[in-house]
Parts: sequence; structure tokens; C-alpha cells
Amino acid sequence: MKTRDRIIHGATELFNEQGERNVTTNHIAAHLGISPGNLYYHFRNKEDIIHSIFDHYAKHLVDSFAPVQEREIRIEHLMGYLDAIFYLMWQFRFFYANLPDILSRDERLQQKYLKAQEQLGNSVQGLLRSLRDGKLLEVVDEDLPDLGQTIKMVVTFWIAYQIAQSPGTRVTKPLLYKGVLRVLFILRPYLHPEVKPQIQQLEQHYRELAG
Amino acid sequence: MKTRDRIIHGATELFNEQGERNVTTNHIAAHLGISPGNLYYHFRNKEDIIHSIFDHYAKHLVDSFAPVQEREIRIEHLMGYLDAIFYLMWQFRFFYANLPDILSRDERLQQKYLKAQEQLGNSVQGLLRSLRDGKLLEVVDEDLPDLGQTIKMVVTFWIAYQIAQSPGTRVTKPLLYKGVLRVLFILRPYLHPEVKPQIQQLEQHYRELAG
Repeated sequence: MKTRDRIIHGATELFNEQGERNVTTNHIAAHLGISPGNLYYHFRNKEDIIHSIFDHYAKHLVDSFAPVQEREIRIEHLMGYLDAIFYLMWQFRFFYANLPDILSRDERLQQKYLKAQEQLGNSVQGLLRSLRDGKLLEVVDEDLPDLGQTIKMVVTFWIAYQIAQSPGTRVTKPLLYKGVLRVLFILRPYLHPEVKPQIQQLEQHYRELAG
Repeated sequence: MKTRDRIIHGATELFNEQGERNVTTNHIAAHLGISPGNLYYHFRNKEDIIHSIFDHYAKHLVDSFAPVQEREIRIEHLMGYLDAIFYLMWQFRFFYANLPDILSRDERLQQKYLKAQEQLGNSVQGLLRSLRDGKLLEVVDEDLPDLGQTIKMVVTFWIAYQIAQSPGTRVTKPLLYKGVLRVLFILRPYLHPEVKPQIQQLEQHYRELAG
């Protein structure tokens, strides 16, 4: 791996484990066993690193919710999307835990975030529409925006809400799988009767992961 | 009104209109036409005022979601609860807009908040149960916690989410009525078929208020 990529990767790891506020560029350099000078050769400062992490996040966001290219959407695709939600929440959990704070310090990042959120809103609605067209969901066009927004809101604030409700909460994988289960819960009333048994299996799968 | 109550009232007004961060005790005194000395006779500092406002908020929270005492729960009761949600969001909108920040500065307030949230969680679940028993909702016991939590989360973060999605958003009454509509949207799949026409009227009512 190139040094630049190692820095992005190592910083993400430290931010996630120790909280973004508690990690300095010196910690990141020490963690990777490189000199601070070498780090500053690649990045101007911590904000600069956060920007690069955000770019990775935004790319994942777009890729993860891209519409299915095959003719027919199936339960496996839905599972793929749910896993993608989990992966993003887990891989970039420091963003979700502390987003307003991180954004408030950086106007340019705030703009990037808004652009990514807009794309995400469109992707989620497109995804729900294709799940509907593939007869996994029964939902009328006019309800798509509310349904998409509710899911987006729950995912966006899942970690922040858990921490707000009980400070000191550790962000663990089971906690995030509970978030995936909540997304399934919101979708549940809209499931096509035919797919309900399969979705129950899917819920069981995530329930085991949620511990 | 006693001076102490006038201060609480005036401070809430200023916090809501100008953002809690931008308002000092001097602004509050000037707004009420009293001397800073008179204000400090009643409150030690701004945090002390915020505590008193929070106590009012917590009292409203308990009163608003108290179970119906009559034998039978009806649509008018549901409307009463939705209006109470709106009233709280509007009357104390500065809390909702900036809660993590306000709480992070004050350990004692954080503890009060958690206690209030716990009570609220129980009230909301009790309320959903009584709506179910009154045949307004069809929902099995094991789904009550998820349904209650989803509604609580959407209400708690409604204002913060709207601001995060488009900074500079003004918190207006229509914006908050859209939040009430979202609560109805989440309840909609669980409505007893018999009450659906009445709920559609209720939705129409809030849609007009949401503009």
C-alpha cells in the first residue's frame, strides 16, 4: 500500500477506535511508524486527512446503492444493500458518531456532505422503486419519498441516537446490526406477501449478528 | 407573572428565535426591561435558566403523553397527542436544534435528559398499546418497542436532521407540522382498516398546516 493510502487507512482506524477528537496527526504517524514529517509530506493537516476519508466514504456511498444491473431484483440484492448499510456505518463510524461537530469546523466538507446526501437520497428512492418494480415491496409512488427519508434519517442518526440515549455506549458491530434490523422493521409493512417468509429468514440472520 | 417566570419565558423566546448560543443573560435582561442584577437575583447564570426551562419541558413531556383516562381512546385523542408533539417541538425548538451541544456542557442536565427520555420511551409505548387496545392500531406486542423507538427517534432528530440536510434552514411551524405528518406516515401501515378514512382526514388537516 502507498504511504498516502496507509495514512488514510490508519487514521480511519484510530478515529473509529478512539474518537476523532482524541486523535492528532502525531498519533497517526506513531501508529503507522512513520515520521510526522513524512505524514505532512502527504497531508497538510488533520482536516486534510478527514477530507480524503470523506471522499472514500462518499465513493462507497454511491457504489453501495447503485441500482441492480440485472433484469430482476431479488432478496439477495436487498441483503447486499443491507450489508452495504452496515459496512458504511461500521467502517466510518466516527463520522456518524460526531458528524455535526466535524462538519461545523469545515465549510468545504459541509458542502461535500450535502452533495453526497442529495445523491444518497436519490439512490435510496431509486432503490425502493426498483424493489417495488421487482415485486419485493408494495408501495405507491407518492409514499416513496417519505419511506426513503425515514430510512435515511434512521441510518444517519442511528449511532448518534444510541450515544445520546446512553452516553458511554460503545459502538459495536451488534449495535449497528440492530440498526440494519430497524431498517428492515420500517420496510416490513411494505413487503409483498410472497417474500415475507424469505424476509423473516433475513431478519433471523441479522438478529443473530445483532446478538 | 412573577419575575422568575418572566425570565424563563423570555429566555425561551429568545433562545428559540436567535439560537441559544447567541443569547446572553444581558440580552435576556434587556429583552425583559429588567436590570442584570435583578436577573442574577433569580438565576445564578445562563445554565441555571436552561435548567429551569428543561424542567418545564420535562413536565410538558410527561403531561402530554399521559394515558387517556376515559374508557375508550378515539381519533380525537390521537390528534391531541400529535398536537402535543408539535407543541413541544415548537415551544422548545432551541433544545431540539442543538441538544448534543447543550447537554455536553452540563453533566447534571444530561442526567435529567436521560431520565426524561426513559419516561418518554415508556409513555410512548404505553400510548401505542392503548391505541392498539382501543382498536385504532393493529400491532403485536413484540413490535411495540421498535415502533415506539422509531417514532421517538424521528421526533427527537426531526429539527437537527432538517438543519443538517440544509444548513440555514429556518425552523418554522410548517417544517414541524411536516414532522407530525412523518409520525402519521410511520403509524399508517399499522392503522386499523376502520379508522383509515378518519386518519386520512387528520393527515389532510396537518398537510394544510404544513403548507
